[in-house]
Amino acid sequence: MKNLPKLVITDIDGVWTDGGMYYDQTGNEWKKFNTSDSAGVLFLRLLKIPVAIMTGEETVVVSRRSQKLKIDYLFQGVKNKLSCAQALADQLGITLDEIAFIGDDINDIKLLNAVGLSGTPANAPNYIKSIVNYVSEVRGGEGAFRDFVEHILSSHNQLEGAIDLYLAEVK
Amino acid sequence: MKNLPKLVITDIDGVWTDGGMYYDQTGNEWKKFNTSDSAGVLFLRLLKIPVAIMTGEETVVVSRRSQKLKIDYLFQGVKNKLSCAQALADQLGITLDEIAFIGDDINDIKLLNAVGLSGTPANAPNYIKSIVNYVSEVRGGEGAFRDFVEHILSSHNQLEGAIDLYLAEVK
Amino acid sequence: MKNLPKLVITDIDGVWTDGGMYYDQTGNEWKKFNTSDSAGVLFLRLLKIPVAIMTGEETVVVSRRSQKLKIDYLFQGVKNKLSCAQALADQLGITLDEIAFIGDDINDIKLLNAVGLSGTPANAPNYIKSIVNYVSEVRGGEGAFRDFVEHILSSHNQLEGAIDLYLAEVK
Amino acid sequence: MKNLPKLVITDIDGVWTDGGMYYDQTGNEWKKFNTSDSAGVLFLRLLKIPVAIMTGEETVVVSRRSQKLKIDYLFQGVKNKLSCAQALADQLGITLDEIAFIGDDINDIKLLNAVGLSGTPANAPNYIKSIVNYVSEVRGGEGAFRDFVEHILSSHNQLEGAIDLYLAEVK
Repeated sequence: MKNLPKLVITDIDGVWTDGGMYYDQTGNEWKKFNTSDSAGVLFLRLLKIPVAIMTGEETVVVSRRSQKLKIDYLFQGVKNKLSCAQALADQLGITLDEIAFIGDDINDIKLLNAVGLSGTPANAPNYIKSIVNYVSEVRGGEGAFRDFVEHILSSHNQLEGAIDLYLAEVK
Repeated sequence: MKNLPKLVITDIDGVWTDGGMYYDQTGNEWKKFNTSDSAGVLFLRLLKIPVAIMTGEETVVVSRRSQKLKIDYLFQGVKNKLSCAQALADQLGITLDEIAFIGDDINDIKLLNAVGLSGTPANAPNYIKSIVNYVSEVRGGEGAFRDFVEHILSSHNQLEGAIDLYLAEVK
Repeated sequence: MKNLPKLVITDIDGVWTDGGMYYDQTGNEWKKFNTSDSAGVLFLRLLKIPVAIMTGEETVVVSRRSQKLKIDYLFQGVKNKLSCAQALADQLGITLDEIAFIGDDINDIKLLNAVGLSGTPANAPNYIKSIVNYVSEVRGGEGAFRDFVEHILSSHNQLEGAIDLYLAEVK
Repeated sequence: MKNLPKLVITDIDGVWTDGGMYYDQTGNEWKKFNTSDSAGVLFLRLLKIPVAIMTGEETVVVSRRSQKLKIDYLFQGVKNKLSCAQALADQLGITLDEIAFIGDDINDIKLLNAVGLSGTPANAPNYIKSIVNYVSEVRGGEGAFRDFVEHILSSHNQLEGAIDLYLAEVK
């Protein structure tokens, strides 16, 4: 990717989590997020790059996390991520080539193949790893999203700048 | 196994989970499943191979997960997995030799010894590992079931086909 | 230890768990046990060796787990494990030398030093590891208790016998 | 640091936890603490060194843990940890140079740079590791705080003394 992306899209299960889905006896459900990823969101906001969550699942759990981190776009219950991303790109007046996307499973394949920069966590299946631009050394749920963002910023020498922006904000 | 199995049976605790049982102060109980395994179920459904869960425990947690993934057969509170599997085989008009089974503990030993293809997660005890056909490199709760299914499909050159079937379904 | 122990005592946090204590916003609390350890309890029951839980904490969580596994003796909120164990030994007419104990932290030191066979999980502090007879290769919460029991049985060539007893019970 | 610190400050998420934030469907939230860290608090209390928690988050979860361990000072929702620590130092009549602090993320950078002894868990980002005095071999949530405390005590040949104090207390 020649320039910074104009949009970063992220899968949830297996990327923001280790794929774990906690079920109890009453019908409630849990996911375990990692605070480490919130800095990834923060860096993008400081650089004015919008973030979209795109997941095949549909839970209040993810809505809550999305609100907490003030994510720009939230798409749940998505069957076809490629067409969902295309629609969002059209709306924003950008191309798929200007999008970075991190996903880890078969329902991410088509979009991973279509975007300008694709990434996946360390523990994705080999047939996902083999098709992406960037394989993180970090596992899903341990900060893989943040690592993907830091990789993007580092590639454009923007990571230190983003950290400085953050430090300047703390008064 | 010369052909694809006609039925895949799976244990839950230690296979679909890392063996973890979460207890709280009120009588509720949790298990942590992994979304990665759901692709294993999906691949088998696309190839029209039924899946059976067989577990010695008895919880609503497992019923919920089974329903979510539309598992074909659910047996909980099973004392003797070999006789339970034999009964299901009879009902389906197949032999134990045509069944693949993944389990990880002593109550799985008899069935592991009886089926056509047996598997176990990376972290099973040595006396289980030593009796199975396939020891996964994946630990229980991290996608060991999916890995077992992918191993079966790969052995018969059906994994790429299953992925293609999946991709063709997404419109 | 020349013979099989006449009693096995176990700590909970850091042995049956990875030390994790889950807190929520409402005052509830969780522990994550591992089904793998239940086979350790089972082996001892088949060999008619009683099991005692001895923990400094005091929760319903542990009471529930103890009942589920039909543990013989449960001591919670124990300040001095050595005197608690001595009292139980007196009651059972045995000596500390005939007891095996697995613990992992400073409040276990005195009892670890006093029993006939002491053990600790792989991730205990070095100053605990250095004083015990057996350092498990298994971490707390991943089956360290079961490994300790299997180590004891193996040392006396009783592990295969215990497994056979188990298999003979399943009709 | 020439002498033992006169105050130890600790971050929570990523230090006392692995950064995990468990969300459910109802608005409740969990953190997983580790009992191992409680010995770190205990050692400091025995040596009469006060402990302060300083976190950017604000949850009942942390209040509960703080009360359970009888932490001396609890600051939640802290935007600027450096000025918060400076105010506490002034109140206690000590200097930042006499404080030890363990943190793991960008909002800890300024305070890490200002204290007499700084530490971070094994899994902190490289740009944090590169600025601290002590990088623990222990990951956040697995006892990194305790390890930091034991490192401090060991450096001043006080660890064995602290353990002896503990053992002398158990009657």
